[in-house]
Amino acid sequence: MELMQGLITRRSVRQYTDQRVSDADITEIVTAGMYAPSARHQLIWEFVVITDREKLKKLSEGLHTAPMAKSAAFGVAVCADLSRAASPDYWDQDCAAATQNILLACHDKGLGAVWVGMYPHAEREDVVKGICGIPAEIRVQSLILAGHPAAPARQEDRFDEHKIRFNDWND
Amino acid sequence: MELMQGLITRRSVRQYTDQRVSDADITEIVTAGMYAPSARHQLIWEFVVITDREKLKKLSEGLHTAPMAKSAAFGVAVCADLSRAASPDYWDQDCAAATQNILLACHDKGLGAVWVGMYPHAEREDVVKGICGIPAEIRVQSLILAGHPAAPARQEDRFDEHKIRFNDWND
Repeated sequence: MELMQGLITRRSVRQYTDQRVSDADITEIVTAGMYAPSARHQLIWEFVVITDREKLKKLSEGLHTAPMAKSAAFGVAVCADLSRAASPDYWDQDCAAATQNILLACHDKGLGAVWVGMYPHAEREDVVKGICGIPAEIRVQSLILAGHPAAPARQEDRFDEHKIRFNDWND
Repeated sequence: MELMQGLITRRSVRQYTDQRVSDADITEIVTAGMYAPSARHQLIWEFVVITDREKLKKLSEGLHTAPMAKSAAFGVAVCADLSRAASPDYWDQDCAAATQNILLACHDKGLGAVWVGMYPHAEREDVVKGICGIPAEIRVQSLILAGHPAAPARQEDRFDEHKIRFNDWND
């Protein structure tokens, strides 16, 4: 898939078939997250992949925003160890860029994926931490859920001329 | 450029030639930002493109983290109007995903770009607001600077097996 085309055709996908994804493909997808930019090159992220069916079911039960976890082929908790942060103010933006790279890498492989928000909702982070044995001091920025899409994603034109100004807000 | 290849070859580029970029190309690049995912589909972003040489020079002088603004072909201030936010807790992560899409769209067009952090540093946001007439209540999440790269970006292998765990932190 061509890069610009990929950027504008990626959609949030919440329904998946039963087909699974190999650990090798998942590793390649998550690796794309490691190529996101980060503040002062702090590379703050840590990734926990969830393929265990029981854990995915528990995520769907514990997070009211993630019922699709039960049918996902895998999840990725995008985490950060702030004890290593060079620019702690930017950790969640760094992780958001990594999350977006992972969503795009899923799209490149013909998979559908959705970004479930975690931080700054500590109670959501705690559900993921409990299920995956993630230490209390680690932060969870997002939970990505992914799988083979049950249906083609609807495309839409999102260009909005009112959202681009040149040189001045009152342009 | 192929999507996965684009994800892993994009680099922060801080030195540019004098060649300019057309408003049409800039608009296409910024439009890619509008296709980022956002919490509850809030599409919170607003984009202010800076091509005015005097404003770019002022940005380079006012922001110690952005000396490259002076030689950039253009800048993009990624902003948000929180009065319209459905999920205000996630606005900066939404804007970070849009920023990443814009950086990747620059890469697709053979341009080099760099993400300069703004929010949560209000004093940096204020510099951009002052130069671009952005109202006080609008937030500035990032400033992207871009242009034709002065030199090819150095490629690197960022895969780190220690950053991927399967199913449990202690995997």
